[in-house]
Amino acid sequence: MNTEIETLQGREAQGLASPGRRSLLVGSAGAMAAVSLLGFVPLARAEEPKSLPDYAAWKERSALIVHSANTMETQRGAIGAGVVTPSDRLFVRNNLPAPDVGITANPDAWEVRIDGVKNPKTLTLGDLKQMGVTTVASVLQCSGNGRAFFPHGASGTQWSVGAAGCVIWTGVPLKTVVEALGGPAAGMKYITSTGGEDLPAGVDPKSIMVERSVPLAALDSALLAWELNDEPLPHTHGGPLRMVVPGYYGVNNVKYVKNVAFTEAQTDAKIQASGYRIREVGKKGSPDQPSMWEMNVKSWVTAPLETGRKGRNMIYGVAFGGTKALDKVEVSTDGGKSWSQAQFLGPDLGPYAWRPFVMAADLAPGEYRIVSRATDSEGNAQPEGRMENERGYGHNGWSDHGVTVTVS
Amino acid sequence: MNTEIETLQGREAQGLASPGRRSLLVGSAGAMAAVSLLGFVPLARAEEPKSLPDYAAWKERSALIVHSANTMETQRGAIGAGVVTPSDRLFVRNNLPAPDVGITANPDAWEVRIDGVKNPKTLTLGDLKQMGVTTVASVLQCSGNGRAFFPHGASGTQWSVGAAGCVIWTGVPLKTVVEALGGPAAGMKYITSTGGEDLPAGVDPKSIMVERSVPLAALDSALLAWELNDEPLPHTHGGPLRMVVPGYYGVNNVKYVKNVAFTEAQTDAKIQASGYRIREVGKKGSPDQPSMWEMNVKSWVTAPLETGRKGRNMIYGVAFGGTKALDKVEVSTDGGKSWSQAQFLGPDLGPYAWRPFVMAADLAPGEYRIVSRATDSEGNAQPEGRMENERGYGHNGWSDHGVTVTVS
Repeated sequence: MNTEIETLQGREAQGLASPGRRSLLVGSAGAMAAVSLLGFVPLARAEEPKSLPDYAAWKERSALIVHSANTMETQRGAIGAGVVTPSDRLFVRNNLPAPDVGITANPDAWEVRIDGVKNPKTLTLGDLKQMGVTTVASVLQCSGNGRAFFPHGASGTQWSVGAAGCVIWTGVPLKTVVEALGGPAAGMKYITSTGGEDLPAGVDPKSIMVERSVPLAALDSALLAWELNDEPLPHTHGGPLRMVVPGYYGVNNVKYVKNVAFTEAQTDAKIQASGYRIREVGKKGSPDQPSMWEMNVKSWVTAPLETGRKGRNMIYGVAFGGTKALDKVEVSTDGGKSWSQAQFLGPDLGPYAWRPFVMAADLAPGEYRIVSRATDSEGNAQPEGRMENERGYGHNGWSDHGVTVTVS
Repeated sequence: MNTEIETLQGREAQGLASPGRRSLLVGSAGAMAAVSLLGFVPLARAEEPKSLPDYAAWKERSALIVHSANTMETQRGAIGAGVVTPSDRLFVRNNLPAPDVGITANPDAWEVRIDGVKNPKTLTLGDLKQMGVTTVASVLQCSGNGRAFFPHGASGTQWSVGAAGCVIWTGVPLKTVVEALGGPAAGMKYITSTGGEDLPAGVDPKSIMVERSVPLAALDSALLAWELNDEPLPHTHGGPLRMVVPGYYGVNNVKYVKNVAFTEAQTDAKIQASGYRIREVGKKGSPDQPSMWEMNVKSWVTAPLETGRKGRNMIYGVAFGGTKALDKVEVSTDGGKSWSQAQFLGPDLGPYAWRPFVMAADLAPGEYRIVSRATDSEGNAQPEGRMENERGYGHNGWSDHGVTVTVS
């Protein structure tokens, strides 16, 4: 057995290196569990290009790095000005194989149970749509975005910068729903959401289910979303209904959400209890370690990448502050020795969105290390280095995220 | 010969009713000219559904009404919350068949000539990209959006509300380019842009070319755009380079732009001199009539459409003020007898963008006429009725744009 959910995913990814395994792996939760139970020895990483799995076949292949059937990353240079990440360029990261696509055939019939409130109730998406609505732009980012930069070889998908995007969600504020049901029951401290994936037989559900708890404070911003980028929420991204917690790492934004419970304690599902915990390299995960909740301030350069042109170059990137608005972004073309402030580009979509930035630089022939450093509205700036940790989570060090560009 | 460019398009659309004509019509400018020169008698309108033409095959068919190979409208209910219109749901309206798609193969090599400045020059898109950048959200709307509501049968595509979308453009401010070339030459009063479409032989170019003049004041907001919604500008929408004049009707946003000239007078191309002019029903177009430049304040409901549910209904729509920001939107469920103010939904993308709005209404069984009325920041409100005019341009009357909804 694997001891970490992401390790399981990592081995699944390796299995995909063999084309013959594709349909088996993409096909069903049962098949996936069989793979994990067999405990495959990791193989060498597969060569690019892999094709898109069927459930994500509508994606723009040229904009993505396909790590596995459950993990696809946006190319660093594929987001243009970067205001809103087009859905077909948005990264994909599923903790379990997606449930049958049929669940989006009649989205309004989807049911979600609300527990831990004064008047618990099962509501359909059709009901939710009449209760209220909000639209918010927010960064969706995997906890392991930047994992590829950890020198100890953190296990899991080797994301560079592309396990992130800025998208527009539309749904009902969770607070509106909960108030209609009398509010949270006394003493509840967490919002615990459960995904609607099919769980394989013969495996302890707690070891594999997607069930995440976030602090009750998230009630002020959380929504139950049925639209992504002004279209019905695609099955690939959790449709028909997804819990969205703006400013929190991706894993907390539970897909195919079928249960939302206000609870006294965090769930004991493995994905919460030992998974997605920050700890020293070599240590196992446990509930006393920090959980991957609120995102930290971060930025990266998106252009130019390998080569620049002699003379004027427009340096682009994106920056965000997690749950906080952004104050500024600085850019350096000499690896961080000197910095200049970049300009924000395009409309401000609110505190949870990222902001594209741009800075003009005149470059003579030579090699340049271009880095960016964002500071949020509370004065938190990206550090230079990594916070070393076993699973390579939460990396926002500016040095690793830079690019080396040759001008000739 | 046709006397109006849009009439010509209308006849082309009719020709498309015969499937056998498809490749001929979509194929080349020469073929299209042949059709127009033959002067086809208009046929009855074709039955839906028509398929998408090859150059727009990437569009979401279910979101569109295909009027012809050059005119595709977004379904009223296909824009979700409506913040940013996804590119694959955005309407298409070409005045001429698009040039060969090969022009987007190497976008940075595209050339645009800048004339009527102190130092005229031909610049490549690669050059433009290093001169400066701006990103702006704006409504793109055809002058004839709403034409279907005119009772006199205004000729041209019978657009309802879907010849409009709110999109994000990225490009260089035209002002930046012009200042680098010494500024406009003395006495220039217009910005005249020419499209890069191939013109058929044997036809007076002035009678068919896409060349539009806008007042010099537009220099404060115009840009030469190479991205639409954070992706390279698709060929379908004018890529590799398009003149964008935020707040101005679609026709002024010249596709495949190959020449931008500062001029003393407006161009004498037919599309400017007699086309896109507001005049009385039955009159011919002429240069002394108002040109379709700045858009007026407008809104429409997008949901519910035909049927509502008993009890609470969320009424959605979009509203914009053209070149002015929006002040408010009111909604009526009784055909305009009583009004309530709606709430704006989602982030404000700036004065040229539209704003989605929402209002909750409790509806008993019955029939409702739901209408919306927007007011811009200068106090201009939508009128109740139409401004009758020959070609059915600029319709922003609230009454025609409403929907009749049955609740049972």
